[in-house]
Amino acid sequence: MTAEPKWLDTREEHAWRTFLHTHHELMLRLQRHMLADSGLIPAEYEVLVVLSQHPDGVMSAQELGSQLRWEKSRLSHQVRRMQDQGLVARDPNPADARSCLVRLEPKGRRTIEEAAPWHVQHVRQDFIDLITPEELETLIAVNERVLGHLAGRAGSEDPFQGNGKQATGK
Amino acid sequence: MTAEPKWLDTREEHAWRTFLHTHHELMLRLQRHMLADSGLIPAEYEVLVVLSQHPDGVMSAQELGSQLRWEKSRLSHQVRRMQDQGLVARDPNPADARSCLVRLEPKGRRTIEEAAPWHVQHVRQDFIDLITPEELETLIAVNERVLGHLAGRAGSEDPFQGNGKQATGK
Repeated sequence: MTAEPKWLDTREEHAWRTFLHTHHELMLRLQRHMLADSGLIPAEYEVLVVLSQHPDGVMSAQELGSQLRWEKSRLSHQVRRMQDQGLVARDPNPADARSCLVRLEPKGRRTIEEAAPWHVQHVRQDFIDLITPEELETLIAVNERVLGHLAGRAGSEDPFQGNGKQATGK
Repeated sequence: MTAEPKWLDTREEHAWRTFLHTHHELMLRLQRHMLADSGLIPAEYEVLVVLSQHPDGVMSAQELGSQLRWEKSRLSHQVRRMQDQGLVARDPNPADARSCLVRLEPKGRRTIEEAAPWHVQHVRQDFIDLITPEELETLIAVNERVLGHLAGRAGSEDPFQGNGKQATGK
């Protein structure tokens, strides 16, 4: 870094800290509720939600992984565990012999249908219902702006991309 | 669940999804920058920041873990790795023979002093600078409200606490 950076002022620092802290605490709370209500961990819940929203509850492992934004190894591991629990099954993929299809089992469908109302209730109670409609719109606007920014400059036009030590010659 | 839950409407669902998505994408981006700029992973950065803000860069392992909100096993593992890299050292704790003191090494201090300006620059560029001062105040207000809510009802007064299956008699 060639010049002193523009440090965050008190309000900016506070906004950044509370953003991180809120996400962390909220995830912990929802996780605890989910385990108590439905015996599920978040990774299981996410897999079941995505499969249950798909026709017949069947998806290729590749498509499932891409919707979840998970690495292949993480998905394989999670699907194997859920197969052992009888929540999903794996079938050969006629379109790709090296891949497989992941299928929601009846027990998996029952589990997500029982778990979803509880989870939504907690998301509402611990987050949505604490926010006014105007604040909700501000949140959406800010988050969409940040996501647009991140999506738009994933590439090389970022002047800060690369190795900082090289840039400063250290 | 005895009655149909109050599902999220389209805007509420969208607000919830963009909140999760923004946090996820932003953390990925900052993580990638940090590794490229300073060769640090976020866990290392966090340990170095907390230690460097402490007098002489020395803290008991217990205090460090509590400030980071980390489990003991996670902290031990991380401190051992950072000791191998020469970033921190472990000393006996005169106040508690079963615990230890964690001390910032000169290399650790140099590392965090070089890394911090880059990280702040990216937090500003990918988040803070995209938000107007009014939006920043709304974000702070919402997040403080959620944190207050979560802190206030960590206990048993939550009617949804406990096992959902028991509550519905399933």
